[in-house]
Amino acid sequence: QYQIPVTSTIENIRNFSTTHQSLEKCALTRERYQIKRGNYNEITPDDVSFFKSVLGDSAVITEDLEGYNTDWINIVRGESQVLLRPRTTDEVSRVLRHCNDRRLAVCPQGGNTGLVGGSVPVFDEVILSTSLMNNIENVDELSGVLTCQSGCVLQTLDQHLEQHGLMMPLDLGAKGSCQIGGNVSTNAGGLRLLRYGSLHGSVLGVEAVMASGEVLDCMCTLRKDNTGYHLKHLLIGAEGTLGVVTKVAILCPRRPQSVSLALLSVDGFNSALAICQRAKIELGEILSSCEFIDGSSMECVTSHFNLTLPVTEAACYMIIETAGSNSDHDQEKLESFLSTSLSDSSGVTDGTLVTESSRMDKIWALRERIVEALLLEGHVFKYDISLPMQEFYNLVLKTQAHMGDTVSRCCGYGHLGDGNLHLNVTIPQYNQEAADRLVPWIYEETARMRGSISAEHGLGFMKRNYIGHSKHQSAVNLMMGIKKLMDPNGILNPYKVLPDH
Amino acid sequence: QYQIPVTSTIENIRNFSTTHQSLEKCALTRERYQIKRGNYNEITPDDVSFFKSVLGDSAVITEDLEGYNTDWINIVRGESQVLLRPRTTDEVSRVLRHCNDRRLAVCPQGGNTGLVGGSVPVFDEVILSTSLMNNIENVDELSGVLTCQSGCVLQTLDQHLEQHGLMMPLDLGAKGSCQIGGNVSTNAGGLRLLRYGSLHGSVLGVEAVMASGEVLDCMCTLRKDNTGYHLKHLLIGAEGTLGVVTKVAILCPRRPQSVSLALLSVDGFNSALAICQRAKIELGEILSSCEFIDGSSMECVTSHFNLTLPVTEAACYMIIETAGSNSDHDQEKLESFLSTSLSDSSGVTDGTLVTESSRMDKIWALRERIVEALLLEGHVFKYDISLPMQEFYNLVLKTQAHMGDTVSRCCGYGHLGDGNLHLNVTIPQYNQEAADRLVPWIYEETARMRGSISAEHGLGFMKRNYIGHSKHQSAVNLMMGIKKLMDPNGILNPYKVLPDH
Repeated sequence: QYQIPVTSTIENIRNFSTTHQSLEKCALTRERYQIKRGNYNEITPDDVSFFKSVLGDSAVITEDLEGYNTDWINIVRGESQVLLRPRTTDEVSRVLRHCNDRRLAVCPQGGNTGLVGGSVPVFDEVILSTSLMNNIENVDELSGVLTCQSGCVLQTLDQHLEQHGLMMPLDLGAKGSCQIGGNVSTNAGGLRLLRYGSLHGSVLGVEAVMASGEVLDCMCTLRKDNTGYHLKHLLIGAEGTLGVVTKVAILCPRRPQSVSLALLSVDGFNSALAICQRAKIELGEILSSCEFIDGSSMECVTSHFNLTLPVTEAACYMIIETAGSNSDHDQEKLESFLSTSLSDSSGVTDGTLVTESSRMDKIWALRERIVEALLLEGHVFKYDISLPMQEFYNLVLKTQAHMGDTVSRCCGYGHLGDGNLHLNVTIPQYNQEAADRLVPWIYEETARMRGSISAEHGLGFMKRNYIGHSKHQSAVNLMMGIKKLMDPNGILNPYKVLPDH
Repeated sequence: QYQIPVTSTIENIRNFSTTHQSLEKCALTRERYQIKRGNYNEITPDDVSFFKSVLGDSAVITEDLEGYNTDWINIVRGESQVLLRPRTTDEVSRVLRHCNDRRLAVCPQGGNTGLVGGSVPVFDEVILSTSLMNNIENVDELSGVLTCQSGCVLQTLDQHLEQHGLMMPLDLGAKGSCQIGGNVSTNAGGLRLLRYGSLHGSVLGVEAVMASGEVLDCMCTLRKDNTGYHLKHLLIGAEGTLGVVTKVAILCPRRPQSVSLALLSVDGFNSALAICQRAKIELGEILSSCEFIDGSSMECVTSHFNLTLPVTEAACYMIIETAGSNSDHDQEKLESFLSTSLSDSSGVTDGTLVTESSRMDKIWALRERIVEALLLEGHVFKYDISLPMQEFYNLVLKTQAHMGDTVSRCCGYGHLGDGNLHLNVTIPQYNQEAADRLVPWIYEETARMRGSISAEHGLGFMKRNYIGHSKHQSAVNLMMGIKKLMDPNGILNPYKVLPDH
């Protein structure tokens, strides 16, 4: 049975950061971005005492918070003085009620694997970590429904489901660290959204604690429930600004009996697009992933980690995965697809098909370790853009032209099957001039192409003021109304998602 | 290529109602259910003049509104005096702004195919019909995204998509009349949710007009967009109480190359449940529908319409559909599944496998015409219940025991693959004693079994006061807050979805 590869990119990075002390810490967020602190109270010894009375001494941490105040890609840094580690919904509720009464700002934090500064405090927000809320409550094999606390690590859940013949409906590079509550709060996408759909489809129930401390119980475990407004979707993708997700119920697909992976060398983006479309038609219901990697991204990952590329060099590459219930049928489909691709004028210059787990892992590593490889080049400007299929790679080309040789690298890879480009620009060190040249230009280009400035990473801190490039004012106004309704004092994850006024 | 069967159940019923004048009209809703009219103004000749100035004379109807004031299953009846038929979002906006300023209540209406009294006025609400908003704006073959106005009929959309090799991700008996705006507003499920998921997954964008007349533009056509709160989901399933859906963008799956259908005679529910589970495992990614019909429902549909049952009689029946990209592979999977089912002790006593379109239609008619057949027996109490799989048929048995011979028939059928039971109780004529014996008892039983009192039909008028059986007070409170935020005067579809205070 299929084992989701355990690349654990983020763990690699964290180890890397620790062992390479030369890596410079990024500036404080409030300084770099000139943010004005909101009208919140500062934490007092009495608050700390209260937290200890609720959570116990060991769950209230006031020292060595560097790892919680910074993100792993080193773009934001806060100054929180206290980290809370509740274990139950009730504890979260009591803590939030206190913070709300006292007007203390709170930054909910899961695995802290976000890429837009959403999970790190900006000033001295109380960090509310869900790490100890890692109880798997139930797996119903008949319905395929998993119920668990929000602090469960994605990979742990997937491994747990394996014994039940099930799998998690999402998979991403951060699987070894990210928590399901964070996945839900950011509406994480990942490598197999193409096949298993978004979390709006697979999350059946959510329990969250609102700013007031009230528990919002939408913990349905049924596949269908049409009773009233579908509130859980407000929590999916709200990045902790409307409530702290404490529990989820997720519909999990059956683990496939057979998985195959093809890596193709392709002569250019137009060919890749045509191959993607043909894969959707010919591989149909067994297609589980369709990834794109440009030559520069591939060069970056293979050279930094000395990885072997098992196909000939090309302008770009594609990873096509199938997952199904009958290995003979699946392999026949994929082989037929590949042989057509290699024989006709489709632009495929080389290709390899693997079904052995360890060899598949090696191919996936080429894709998943790009993030990590890019970080080795200094500062990385990361953009997670959704685009109409035809425009997918145009944005990379335009950005290359726009930035010229002021940057070290400008490359693109991502979920071509979903139109989701990960555009990355690297320079040796953060520099304000490059930052200003990139943003808002890149978001304006995205809007012109009718794309979205965040496909799957969310807005967090970094993109909140650019929401207007992807959302109409009518929608932003309603979002503000909902925020005010659910968190009147604005204590939950301030300076995130919604624009400054 | 596959043609979704055109049973058009509802059209049959409407014709039936017209030709059988003996069918008694149901009582006025306000009388039967003793409803108190809300604090709305009554419509004046000035209002009618205004509507005519915006929409033109022919789009403002003030006569022969019987068909718009009643539902097709004859359980609710209102007394609206005016029907508006806007053609554009702007017209809807101007009409709603006027109604909001004047405090005139409005009942949005699509195909009026609902089953819970949600699409019919209770008193004299202005009926806002989307029937003329039937423009198909775009089909993007590459991404599979359809963009259209909300008044497009589901079947028309599906037929239109066929030429692009695509299909609608939902299918239901009412396809010939129901409109996509109504489907979205009720979060319609249907026969293939098992495969293609809920509308929360496939609807990419929604445009709606709010009570104030403001247009809420969430018309994304991208597969992924994580910028801010995911507001469209508030409109999906709000049954017209938060806004009038005017436009949608939907992700449409590719039309399968091959479709097969099996009808099985099964010796009882436990066997059916085991077969359903095995179908999910063995047919995996090609399983597109798994329906259950009990003996009584089958007897009802075959006898009333003199239909031939192509398998031997049994305690219950299952319809299992597969849809895939390779007919050889698909048929091999289904044949292997069937031959195991027939040879082992799985409780399958007979079975037939068909792939010819006309023969598949005949089998689907056995399932889809049950609704219609039941109506021929007098008054039908309809319950659309979501249940844990194991409990699926227990509710039918309990209801039979509870009602005894005070009713003509108590039967169950539905989407077993999703745990969605359609429980029906028929009596020659509506009678209050039977109604009181059924509700709230049936909802209390459902809650005890941890089910939902509405799987796919919504709450509408009929179930609004029972929301507490499926939703916690915390959730209902938030729903009320959102209603107040988006429709402060409560003009949109009053007496629906949310409970009376």
